[in-house]
Amino acid sequence: MAQPKYLTGDSAAINEFIDRFDVFLLDCDGVLWSGDHLFEGIVETLELLRSRGKRVVFVTNNSTKSRQDYQKKLTALGIPSDIEEIFASAYSSAVYISRILKLPEGKNKVFVIGESGIETELRTENIPFVGGTDPALRRDITPEDYGKIADGSMLDPEVGVVLAGLDFHINYLKLSLGFQYLQRGAKFLATNLDSTLPNSHSFFPGAGSISIPLVYMSGQQPLSLGKPSQAMMDAIEGKFQLDRARTCMVGDRLNTDIQFGVEGGLGGTLAVLTGVSKKEHWEAKDAPAVPAYYVDKLSDLRGARL
Amino acid sequence: MAQPKYLTGDSAAINEFIDRFDVFLLDCDGVLWSGDHLFEGIVETLELLRSRGKRVVFVTNNSTKSRQDYQKKLTALGIPSDIEEIFASAYSSAVYISRILKLPEGKNKVFVIGESGIETELRTENIPFVGGTDPALRRDITPEDYGKIADGSMLDPEVGVVLAGLDFHINYLKLSLGFQYLQRGAKFLATNLDSTLPNSHSFFPGAGSISIPLVYMSGQQPLSLGKPSQAMMDAIEGKFQLDRARTCMVGDRLNTDIQFGVEGGLGGTLAVLTGVSKKEHWEAKDAPAVPAYYVDKLSDLRGARL
Repeated sequence: MAQPKYLTGDSAAINEFIDRFDVFLLDCDGVLWSGDHLFEGIVETLELLRSRGKRVVFVTNNSTKSRQDYQKKLTALGIPSDIEEIFASAYSSAVYISRILKLPEGKNKVFVIGESGIETELRTENIPFVGGTDPALRRDITPEDYGKIADGSMLDPEVGVVLAGLDFHINYLKLSLGFQYLQRGAKFLATNLDSTLPNSHSFFPGAGSISIPLVYMSGQQPLSLGKPSQAMMDAIEGKFQLDRARTCMVGDRLNTDIQFGVEGGLGGTLAVLTGVSKKEHWEAKDAPAVPAYYVDKLSDLRGARL
Repeated sequence: MAQPKYLTGDSAAINEFIDRFDVFLLDCDGVLWSGDHLFEGIVETLELLRSRGKRVVFVTNNSTKSRQDYQKKLTALGIPSDIEEIFASAYSSAVYISRILKLPEGKNKVFVIGESGIETELRTENIPFVGGTDPALRRDITPEDYGKIADGSMLDPEVGVVLAGLDFHINYLKLSLGFQYLQRGAKFLATNLDSTLPNSHSFFPGAGSISIPLVYMSGQQPLSLGKPSQAMMDAIEGKFQLDRARTCMVGDRLNTDIQFGVEGGLGGTLAVLTGVSKKEHWEAKDAPAVPAYYVDKLSDLRGARL
């Protein structure tokens, strides 16, 4: 497989790279910032891209935040953005349900396993839902619940979809309800399938670790609406009417970001070394995907010849 | 593959079957009872076997109960038993840790994801543990927890094993702690890997659905101490000094009970049709295991010629 082209310090190559694309899809954590630490030169780099007429889209698998929440985070870090530039997996899921699934009347509710970001996006798309942050489900299962779940009296008969994202309040009751809905034929969606979530220089359970018990119980794989699932790429393409050949995916993870761009047939992919994946990862024989370009850090693009 | 011999109503065949074995390993739910309903004729069938000098062992994957708890359940249902006849996965796990793992001093604590049955059995084997039913872990994760888990200050440095069983109080905090211990090299054990748990004529999350997030995050498979894992068979053999050729496994599930007996090289396996698996399951090409014998219900063994 072709090795990626290294751009850092090569102003002619950077220039040529930028010219090849109209749209840059930017992963955020590990690319623009780490946790709450904004990397140096990011604001100027985004300005550079915009000043050259490029569209930037912030693409994130974070399902706990709505686009509004995410914009607040960008603003707090000093990154100017428009809400329409933000594409998060909760939004991706809501758009998929409302515009592609088109659930029939009477079976159009979503049982949510997840946090408020998902709820906000479902509301924006006028999708009815149950579960989510409902305090009535933040409790232990009781002996009476088993019978009421089994006979359906505790279920909402209008639920036609189970949507699972990252849920910091996951419990046995929610898993029992989600599984029961799946057994009764609900479609199975996931905001994303990341096994882990970086925090404090370590790893914690990601959205995929919340839905995996439902996979194990039901034998069904959910359709993921996050990277690297092409359902998310289709939703991005639908919204932005982008020309894939003139679009570049920028990210730090080979098995989400770079794979997402490669499988989506984008014109290019750019890896940055400020996050999870390292050079040796794509040099390995079993690399999940190999980027077309790489830089040490995104702000190295400021080395473009103006 | 040879088809199983049908014993119901054939007194000569039943007689010959009973004579072939000294020990009967009996699965419980689906064989002796369903939920809290004892099947008709079970007490008399156990009496028949005992009167013919057979040893019976109650073998269950239920990890929420200690052997004492389980004996109470047997007694409440009217089944006489000795505590030494009970072999449950929590006990199996404790025996494995104390007698086979033999953890080094200073790294000999167990982080438990599970209920009190596991704790009781660990105490009986003098194995120190943390987690389990500790009320301090029955809460939401806080922003401060991330740092304390990541830097280890919230961890017990003596933990050398993560043991996961069925936990009705599973939450994000416990999964985060379990994963962190695994990342730091703790051995990964599971009481059993059943994906579901029957209740109220439906299915709910089983022990395997509690540990599967840790599998997904860590990429590690736990050693299971429940059926069909042969680690449980080895523990049973060690305790009862049984002759496998003269031992018969009795159960209702092909992919746990019958597979357990077949892979263990027992002299025989008997399927009953009062639980999960049906005749067409072992007649299918992809049957996980085929029993040597079957009856409609366990009490059909009362048709033995006396």
